Amino acid sequence: VSLWDPVFGAGAVAAELDDRAWLRAMCDAEAALAGACAEVGLIGDPRAVAEACADLAANLDPGELGRLAAADGNPVIPLVRLLRERAPDAHLGATSQDILDTAMMLVAYRALGVLLPELAAAADACAGLARRHRDTAMAGRTLLQQAVRTTFGALAAGWGAGLDRSLALLRTVRADRLAVQLGGAAGTLAGWHPHGPAVVAAFAARAGLAEPAGVWHTERTRVAELAAALGTACGAVGKVATDVVLLAQTELAEVREAAGGGSSAMPHKRNPIAAVTARAAAAQAPGLVATLLGAQAPELQRGAGPWHAEWQPLTALLRTTGGAASRLRDSLRGLQVDPAAMARNLAAGPADGGHPGHAADLVDHYLERRS
Amino acid sequence: VSLWDPVFGAGAVAAELDDRAWLRAMCDAEAALAGACAEVGLIGDPRAVAEACADLAANLDPGELGRLAAADGNPVIPLVRLLRERAPDAHLGATSQDILDTAMMLVAYRALGVLLPELAAAADACAGLARRHRDTAMAGRTLLQQAVRTTFGALAAGWGAGLDRSLALLRTVRADRLAVQLGGAAGTLAGWHPHGPAVVAAFAARAGLAEPAGVWHTERTRVAELAAALGTACGAVGKVATDVVLLAQTELAEVREAAGGGSSAMPHKRNPIAAVTARAAAAQAPGLVATLLGAQAPELQRGAGPWHAEWQPLTALLRTTGGAASRLRDSLRGLQVDPAAMARNLAAGPADGGHPGHAADLVDHYLERRS
Amino acid sequence: VSLWDPVFGAGAVAAELDDRAWLRAMCDAEAALAGACAEVGLIGDPRAVAEACADLAANLDPGELGRLAAADGNPVIPLVRLLRERAPDAHLGATSQDILDTAMMLVAYRALGVLLPELAAAADACAGLARRHRDTAMAGRTLLQQAVRTTFGALAAGWGAGLDRSLALLRTVRADRLAVQLGGAAGTLAGWHPHGPAVVAAFAARAGLAEPAGVWHTERTRVAELAAALGTACGAVGKVATDVVLLAQTELAEVREAAGGGSSAMPHKRNPIAAVTARAAAAQAPGLVATLLGAQAPELQRGAGPWHAEWQPLTALLRTTGGAASRLRDSLRGLQVDPAAMARNLAAGPADGGHPGHAADLVDHYLERRS
Amino acid sequence: VSLWDPVFGAGAVAAELDDRAWLRAMCDAEAALAGACAEVGLIGDPRAVAEACADLAANLDPGELGRLAAADGNPVIPLVRLLRERAPDAHLGATSQDILDTAMMLVAYRALGVLLPELAAAADACAGLARRHRDTAMAGRTLLQQAVRTTFGALAAGWGAGLDRSLALLRTVRADRLAVQLGGAAGTLAGWHPHGPAVVAAFAARAGLAEPAGVWHTERTRVAELAAALGTACGAVGKVATDVVLLAQTELAEVREAAGGGSSAMPHKRNPIAAVTARAAAAQAPGLVATLLGAQAPELQRGAGPWHAEWQPLTALLRTTGGAASRLRDSLRGLQVDPAAMARNLAAGPADGGHPGHAADLVDHYLERRS
Repeated sequence: VSLWDPVFGAGAVAAELDDRAWLRAMCDAEAALAGACAEVGLIGDPRAVAEACADLAANLDPGELGRLAAADGNPVIPLVRLLRERAPDAHLGATSQDILDTAMMLVAYRALGVLLPELAAAADACAGLARRHRDTAMAGRTLLQQAVRTTFGALAAGWGAGLDRSLALLRTVRADRLAVQLGGAAGTLAGWHPHGPAVVAAFAARAGLAEPAGVWHTERTRVAELAAALGTACGAVGKVATDVVLLAQTELAEVREAAGGGSSAMPHKRNPIAAVTARAAAAQAPGLVATLLGAQAPELQRGAGPWHAEWQPLTALLRTTGGAASRLRDSLRGLQVDPAAMARNLAAGPADGGHPGHAADLVDHYLERRS
Repeated sequence: VSLWDPVFGAGAVAAELDDRAWLRAMCDAEAALAGACAEVGLIGDPRAVAEACADLAANLDPGELGRLAAADGNPVIPLVRLLRERAPDAHLGATSQDILDTAMMLVAYRALGVLLPELAAAADACAGLARRHRDTAMAGRTLLQQAVRTTFGALAAGWGAGLDRSLALLRTVRADRLAVQLGGAAGTLAGWHPHGPAVVAAFAARAGLAEPAGVWHTERTRVAELAAALGTACGAVGKVATDVVLLAQTELAEVREAAGGGSSAMPHKRNPIAAVTARAAAAQAPGLVATLLGAQAPELQRGAGPWHAEWQPLTALLRTTGGAASRLRDSLRGLQVDPAAMARNLAAGPADGGHPGHAADLVDHYLERRS
Repeated sequence: VSLWDPVFGAGAVAAELDDRAWLRAMCDAEAALAGACAEVGLIGDPRAVAEACADLAANLDPGELGRLAAADGNPVIPLVRLLRERAPDAHLGATSQDILDTAMMLVAYRALGVLLPELAAAADACAGLARRHRDTAMAGRTLLQQAVRTTFGALAAGWGAGLDRSLALLRTVRADRLAVQLGGAAGTLAGWHPHGPAVVAAFAARAGLAEPAGVWHTERTRVAELAAALGTACGAVGKVATDVVLLAQTELAEVREAAGGGSSAMPHKRNPIAAVTARAAAAQAPGLVATLLGAQAPELQRGAGPWHAEWQPLTALLRTTGGAASRLRDSLRGLQVDPAAMARNLAAGPADGGHPGHAADLVDHYLERRS
Repeated sequence: VSLWDPVFGAGAVAAELDDRAWLRAMCDAEAALAGACAEVGLIGDPRAVAEACADLAANLDPGELGRLAAADGNPVIPLVRLLRERAPDAHLGATSQDILDTAMMLVAYRALGVLLPELAAAADACAGLARRHRDTAMAGRTLLQQAVRTTFGALAAGWGAGLDRSLALLRTVRADRLAVQLGGAAGTLAGWHPHGPAVVAAFAARAGLAEPAGVWHTERTRVAELAAALGTACGAVGKVATDVVLLAQTELAEVREAAGGGSSAMPHKRNPIAAVTARAAAAQAPGLVATLLGAQAPELQRGAGPWHAEWQPLTALLRTTGGAASRLRDSLRGLQVDPAAMARNLAAGPADGGHPGHAADLVDHYLERRS
């Protein structure tokens, strides 16, 4: 556990993103490749590779691997040396990028396995709020000025719609675009010829990832799509968290987090700290997305920098998105909504009067779309 | 025509993005709204509105509208004043965001109408190169060092796959996610009650945009998705352009642009200027995407800054993506590929020898996927 | 005048950033170069060049220049052709980057000439507010929860300190780092040998820019420093604007813009529209700064894309910073501060009581530092 | 040691950036504050606080602190609880932001203590190359096309100038702008009245940081300036690393890293891996700078998200800049320059002939400026 991860809600997702998780993913990729090679008869019994992979995944010190990796610029090169000492059939036909790209996809796949339920819980909490407050009148505020009336249900339905859309995008990317990478030294599948396509298919099945349509060593749209979907999710989370912080202001007091945070100087305070840290986590996404989009032009058959520039930002992006989702879930679960305060603020301001419009219909339609 | 647009290939797309195009889109949105209101009987004859819209779209000075807009922070407010002088039924029930958001979607829709064929032409050019050079051997280069042999066809197939994917993403966003926005003062459709949903449907049909599932005044995932797809396309373009620039280096001389650019100091030069400017246009996308992702948390019922922060970056992003696509198309059309130079470089370096692997199969599969 | 510039406060600065301003700057650079060459005797009478430059600066259509520029990727190449038709001595020894880089610095220098007084006026307005409200008690709010008491003067002093610092940074960059660029085809000053350094000095004096320590065609720290100072200024502006928007909320009502903006749907509204649009303008800066920082690694003796990627983002960054400064000045000038509302909110909340601390001292020290 | 830090050169700097370093900095800030309070007589003997701080800095598990911190959103709150159990005088008058901001500055100060010598070593290596190759002719390449002749010395002088400038900027920021933060609950120094200013001065002296001109809890220009200087340094590093990678291409072979990296698939390769990973580290900076610039508008007296959003991106930015500097130093130290290859490429291409211009003068002037 790190100092910062729990503060920003990344406690759970971090376990799928730390050094050990990356090492495990690299070893799983090597084991899956050996299994695939065995399926087509390129190597004999893959069990020695599988055993060496399992052992290294569990027992190798990732920091030690990092030290060994510095000379060659990526951790797969020393990992393969260690593997081949034990199982000479390992890494047959592959280049280090094949393993690292596949591992990156595995890491993302597994991190999303943690992240998505937390985001879904936040989305469900919105649906609950919308249902319960379908008819709770509140002041609509535009440019932070009271405008006309709306309902808290309509607001929560809008929150939920953004989260639901983000979920759908991330689920699609996870199922369709997180694929194994296999190409060999220059992306021609030469090392497995004439079994290349069969090895790719078996590799994907064994790794539990999608089978790619081609070789994507320097065709990085899938990384961009993953980054974009994470950035979109952070935007949707940040929207909700911003509104919670605003509605929780002392002078509005329309919502209140169940837990709330304290202060080292002011014992009376009850800060909407889950929403505050969700905002902070979400705010870290756009810059990371930009870095990943900026790395989409790796040179010729392997990027001389752009490729390497993906590993850490993508890890950070998954971590901060997971954290944002988790903190938002915490904020919304048990969020204390105060209809009386909403009514009071509405009555006191210029937004009073007027027609509620289709606020209730919007809630109903949103709930129908989810069911 | 601006000074910079032709340099960066945005000459064509800019006509859908300039001030007049925005004004036209706002007027079109008002006219569509009036038509929709008339359909459900909320107003009588919408022709007066339509005529006033057409007249202002054609004849109002956008700079003058901008000057009038400064006091209120958006151009729809003075536009509505001008419209209502001529057609009092205009803008019934709407808030300025309804019109501006819808106009933004129209602008994007129309700009994509120019951009997509240019991107498709670049993608088709890749397919042509892949087909013609299915078996043209060349040195694979990883980290810009010669590695093992590949083919130019395999490289071009990878280029094309990224462009094809970008096209598919943008087409889906254009068809499904570019929707009208309608909500009224606080997003409850109050001004059209009880006909709100019917007005939305008619508004969408008349505007030629998708009908949204709810009100999205502060649920901005569709803007994020559009931005992300444009950023992904720029990444795919930048990849191809980078490779063209690298292969065109004097010392490699494996490709050469048909036109080529000159120099004010060195008449002998033949710069791959279309690829250079495509790279430069594409490089401007990630920062703009980050700005748009960072604007996804507008406050409560209308953003006090985040909303306004979308208009110019999205325009710039559409422009630079259109420019990148157009310049890449120019670069690839008639790209002169020199198989003899490729063979010479391959023979001179360590990448010679070895097996071509599935390079030809990869080309074939790529071409099959397109057909 | 464009549609958007007045909305985002860039009406004034835009005149130094538009196509004509760039054309003028390029022509001024050519004229200064000719004068410098004449000083050391490399050419005879530079008046023909000066006249041709003045004529083209005033009369050439920038859009036409753009069209001519597309083939070679920058507007200096066709401009030189046009110049030399009239004055064959023009552009002696130079490469197009020399002129474009120098023009970019001139454009920045002149835009800062408009921008800095607006930023200074905003800073002065803060000082006025701090002085007038040195002892106006208000609730301090942390994480948007009432915490303990402070004064509006202390808040305004903090606002002003950030603006003053930004001013100082921008003034230093303007005076010290906006330099002419001169290097020739590969940056060796070969075209002016043995007078190279003397030509650089004379060129700088005539252009009214700093003399650089070396050749900076691919050493772009000065562009980064300019971008960073602009980004920092936008941050400082955004801070003030955010606080104005928050304090102007209906429920707090502690400040109110003198002008205020209206709404197309709600005549009762008085939106803090200058602050809102200042925030929106400021929010566009970080992405542009990132783009410019990302362009700092142009290849070898001239960037094949990174160089070209500076022109539009830097223009946009100067425009949005100028706009943000201008809109903030508008917001603060005549800002209506309501001490009674501040007292009422303070009395109603938990922040009441407690000691004012050094709030007044902080104001006094801030005002002393300025004087 | 982490998996990634050694790969990206952050092995050394990471020790000043990890969880323990942050904990140590927080404890050091608390101890310095207690000492300062004792100086003015606000507390008695500060030794109990100092001892508790030293003990916790060494022995507290940062992960455990993180877990405790989740409820309140920052680690200082639980740290103060632990401190006060042992030394009730701890944290007198302070708010958690005072300690965290000061700790952030300490972390940056110490990380720069590692980073700057590495960057200086890279800059010195450039000077050595420029001196040794003052007259080594090579082809100048613009837009990656051979243009006219230059020297490797002139190129290296340009590299070095960018690094020297970055060093100067970072040294100035470190000395002048890394200041303690002290303000108390709402930034009025109320908790130390009437000794506030004296406590700030003593706090700064004891912490070894600059004394700030005011309270900067929500005036974040110094964070922006630090971020900007780091981003500028990464740009300068990236420029050099890019050129090394380009000159090391198989077909140019003008430089070669002394160590060079291997490949898991191609034993013959000698990749310029230090430059490649320096590029990758540097490429991660612009997005992080944008995030930090985007966090410059914390709300009123403490940011509800923007403040929290600084800690991790600044840590990552210091790490990646340190790594980039370190890897570049590795690349340049012992860089093997091949004048014969340079001459051969020059002779074979269109850049041959022509005048060397002031290339040697540029080297001499650069070396003079350094001495």
